[in-house]
Amino acid sequence: MNDIAQRVYDHQWKIDPIVRSVIDTDFYKLLMAQTVFHNHPHARVTFSLINRSDDVPLARLIDEGELRQQLDHVRTLRLTRGESTWLRGNTFYGKRWMFEPEFMDWLENFRFPEYRLERRGDQYELTFEGPWIEAMMWEIPALAILMELRTRAVLRELGKFELQILYARAMTRIWEKIERLQALPGLQISDFGARRRHSFLWQDWCVQAMIEGLGPRFSGTSNCLIAMRRDLEAIGTNAHELPMVYCALAGEDDAALAQAPYKVLEDWQKDYEGNLRIVLPDTIGSAGFFAHAPEWIARWTGARIDSGDPAEGAETAIAFWKRHGEDPREKRIIFSDGLDIDVIERLHARFADRVKVSYGWGTLLTNDFRGLAPRDGLAPFSLVCKAVSAEGRPCVKLSDNPVKATGPAEEIARYKRVFGVGEQAARPVMV
Amino acid sequence: MNDIAQRVYDHQWKIDPIVRSVIDTDFYKLLMAQTVFHNHPHARVTFSLINRSDDVPLARLIDEGELRQQLDHVRTLRLTRGESTWLRGNTFYGKRWMFEPEFMDWLENFRFPEYRLERRGDQYELTFEGPWIEAMMWEIPALAILMELRTRAVLRELGKFELQILYARAMTRIWEKIERLQALPGLQISDFGARRRHSFLWQDWCVQAMIEGLGPRFSGTSNCLIAMRRDLEAIGTNAHELPMVYCALAGEDDAALAQAPYKVLEDWQKDYEGNLRIVLPDTIGSAGFFAHAPEWIARWTGARIDSGDPAEGAETAIAFWKRHGEDPREKRIIFSDGLDIDVIERLHARFADRVKVSYGWGTLLTNDFRGLAPRDGLAPFSLVCKAVSAEGRPCVKLSDNPVKATGPAEEIARYKRVFGVGEQAARPVMV
Repeated sequence: MNDIAQRVYDHQWKIDPIVRSVIDTDFYKLLMAQTVFHNHPHARVTFSLINRSDDVPLARLIDEGELRQQLDHVRTLRLTRGESTWLRGNTFYGKRWMFEPEFMDWLENFRFPEYRLERRGDQYELTFEGPWIEAMMWEIPALAILMELRTRAVLRELGKFELQILYARAMTRIWEKIERLQALPGLQISDFGARRRHSFLWQDWCVQAMIEGLGPRFSGTSNCLIAMRRDLEAIGTNAHELPMVYCALAGEDDAALAQAPYKVLEDWQKDYEGNLRIVLPDTIGSAGFFAHAPEWIARWTGARIDSGDPAEGAETAIAFWKRHGEDPREKRIIFSDGLDIDVIERLHARFADRVKVSYGWGTLLTNDFRGLAPRDGLAPFSLVCKAVSAEGRPCVKLSDNPVKATGPAEEIARYKRVFGVGEQAARPVMV
Repeated sequence: MNDIAQRVYDHQWKIDPIVRSVIDTDFYKLLMAQTVFHNHPHARVTFSLINRSDDVPLARLIDEGELRQQLDHVRTLRLTRGESTWLRGNTFYGKRWMFEPEFMDWLENFRFPEYRLERRGDQYELTFEGPWIEAMMWEIPALAILMELRTRAVLRELGKFELQILYARAMTRIWEKIERLQALPGLQISDFGARRRHSFLWQDWCVQAMIEGLGPRFSGTSNCLIAMRRDLEAIGTNAHELPMVYCALAGEDDAALAQAPYKVLEDWQKDYEGNLRIVLPDTIGSAGFFAHAPEWIARWTGARIDSGDPAEGAETAIAFWKRHGEDPREKRIIFSDGLDIDVIERLHARFADRVKVSYGWGTLLTNDFRGLAPRDGLAPFSLVCKAVSAEGRPCVKLSDNPVKATGPAEEIARYKRVFGVGEQAARPVMV
């Protein structure tokens, strides 16, 4: 018995939409949006999609019409009653009513703003311009759409059983990683893989596998929709976007620029407490960030290490806490850059006894298809969606890895001077 | 949208039946049944299920009530109109109307006869007694039921994702074997794995994977139901059962016994020609079989090598054909014992240029879950269903591997004397 009605209903879809919900996004995006709502409701910001992997010719792989259909579909989405109820009522990190009614009213009425799409050679130029709080919402859905359209393009060549074997191998690979994670004492790990996932269904599968394989050691997912459906905690704090835009808004005044990254945290702690008070030091270079950080930042709950050598980044944070009389064993370090099982095992062996460690596992959880498709066509690649300007001023990210730096060269030079960044070791960016 | 009607319908099943069709059986069973129908319509034969793997305690793993339910369900089956049409109308090996109308009438009215089930320690004693043509039909469904109930018993302990990974690994394993098979020039291989399959659905999956992976190099399946559904050729010729029963029916007269294995082939060639004329020499020991075989048997299409060292068995057949002035390159050898990818590669390298080679791949195609379940609980094991007596006289199989011999010791000794069987090398029986 086929469900004939289901089949007929399915036939009515013009496309198979990739992003089907306003909250199929990272939790930190909503947390940041609330802070923007409070502090910069009128700032105008431009975001742009950047493919750091030239060897993946997105515009040859993905049809422009299909891409537009997917982006247009996102613009039809609205927060549903159930999603709103879940956001309003849920407990995050033990705190109820994290989102205040005014912000929820805004979110309920939110529609994704227009996008600008142009083909440039083998790449697409995709930009989002408008009020910061609107344009910022595009980041995760735009990345997820590009990633999944690329997945679909590559998978179109495969036969039914080749597809089954592809997924069988990918599932086996994840499970073997999970079995190795089971051996790590005191593990706390969560899914940060929404943005560069292979596909929505695959992210959902990976999350379920983590639930069964790790139980309470799996703390949750950054994807709000999956957190809601799978009855998990939504995980996340803040991202580079905040200091990048704050710095750009500081204008040409070097002194104002130097203070901007700390102003972000001042604003943030008015909205959030506890586990949400995690500093992200690498936007302007971690060493300089900690060197000039005011005392009160040492009271925060922890730090997220998102570029450069992760062990070195953690040591810098630990030294900062010790310098300010804080016990590192009471602090949380979240590793979230380029994690895979080997790296996690190595970091865990080194830091598990010295700080509270957790892992925000991204691309190599939700998109590890390396070596599984013809010509390695599904290998993850480095696609980002970054703030490029705010109120007409360019946005800059230095990062602890110069390869990941974004912004015009002269502004990067100025930031390096203002934030006292010296030589940085370049590391290959895989994902 | 769930199909509510489907769910309600599913709830009405008391059991999940393992064997759901009269033709969910090996093709050779129907071919043999037609010969029995012509030549021994009234002989009474007893079949018995024998677990050669003592370390698999079937009676502890499988609930007796569940086993009875499955066997009782088989007794409710009847040939359907579509199955009858397919058998009557289909072409097998290029010959149409292989089954004559009288036999088809019998098959349409056939019901599985009673069974006798008793528990003996950790094993079941399951026997089928009656007219040969009825009792013989139990072999494949009885084996498939025991195998699949054991599978279910072991899988009951696993979580949802553990199950997914188990199948992901098994699928990957099969696919890697298929990829290696793709490299063999002139390959002809078919599925002989119904009897000891992991489950019906799994056999069906393996067959579909072989279709996609090997195309025309995959010649078909011995399972009639799957052949019908997947639009494949049904493959098979004859089995040990025929000479075993013919020998028992020969009575105490040694001269009659000595002729019985050849009488089988005389009867067989009245019904079948071409690719169905494949001798199975090992029932009474291959060396003796060929040494005493009448000249006309060298005209047959080929031989099936089903026990002992397969290369040695093939050499014995080749020597027989040469002795009788036949060109071995015109003859077909079907290897069907304990095959796996390594063995197939080795045999192919040695024989592909010397004879027409094909492979009847059984247990390690449809049941290779070695090492995949806790305590290796899904490793294949050696379960057989054999004729044990005919008209009150014991049935004997010598085989080319003494470990696989069946029958009372004194009768085995007599057969060895009559058929001139000397020393035989014992080989471990894996499946």
